[in-house]
Amino acid sequence: MKVQKFSPSDAEFSRSPGQTGDIYVGNLVDERHGGPITIGYGRYAANQKLTETMAVDDVMIVLEGRVAVSTTAGTHIAGPGDIVYMPKGETVTIVTEGEGALTAYVTYPHWSEVHEA
Amino acid sequence: MKVQKFSPSDAEFSRSPGQTGDIYVGNLVDERHGGPITIGYGRYAANQKLTETMAVDDVMIVLEGRVAVSTTAGTHIAGPGDIVYMPKGETVTIVTEGEGALTAYVTYPHWSEVHEA
Repeated sequence: MKVQKFSPSDAEFSRSPGQTGDIYVGNLVDERHGGPITIGYGRYAANQKLTETMAVDDVMIVLEGRVAVSTTAGTHIAGPGDIVYMPKGETVTIVTEGEGALTAYVTYPHWSEVHEA
Repeated sequence: MKVQKFSPSDAEFSRSPGQTGDIYVGNLVDERHGGPITIGYGRYAANQKLTETMAVDDVMIVLEGRVAVSTTAGTHIAGPGDIVYMPKGETVTIVTEGEGALTAYVTYPHWSEVHEA
C-alpha cells in the first residue's frame, strides 16, 4: 500500500451504523485495502447522543467542535487537538451539546468487520 | 484499560529516535499499557527533515502547521485536519518549511518495540 493523504472533503459520510441520530462516519482506509487499521472522519451534529460498547480499539482525534465521552468512571470533555482513546470492551456514551464536532478516527482492527449493528 | 482523554500538554516530548533534528515525539499510550496500538503527539520545528522506512503502520493527523510527506511516488502537503497514512514498509521523507507542525499519531503495532534506531 502507498502513502496516502486525506482531507475531510475526501470522506463519503454515511450514518453511523446502529443509530438514527445525526452522526456520520466516512472510512478512508479499511478492510478493503489490505492493511490492519481503519482510518476515517466522523461528523456529529449538535445535541446528539450515541452509546456503544467498543468492538475494537478506537482512537478519536477531535478536529473541530466538542464532544463529551462518558463511561461509568466519569466524563471526558474533548475539544480541538484532544485525543480520546476508547479501548475494546469499554461502553461509552458520546454526546455533543450546543455545537457539533468533526473528528478523525483510527481503529484496530477494522470496526466494520466486527460491528454487531 | 479505561477510556482516556489526552491533550498535547499531557505529552512528554523527547527527540524522535535516530535523528538529531528538532523533531519530538511523546507517546501517551504504548506497549507499557497492554493494548495493541501506540498513541501520541509529535512536534516538528520549522525547516526540519526526517527520512524513515516505516517499521509499522503509522497514521499522522496534522493539528497545527504544515508538513510535506514525500515518497518516490510524489509529495503530499498536509495541513490542519489532514491525515497522512504511512503504511509499513514505505520510505518517507517528512519536511517542514517555514512553519513547524503539531501532529497526533496512531501506530499499529507499537513503533518503539520495532524501531531499529
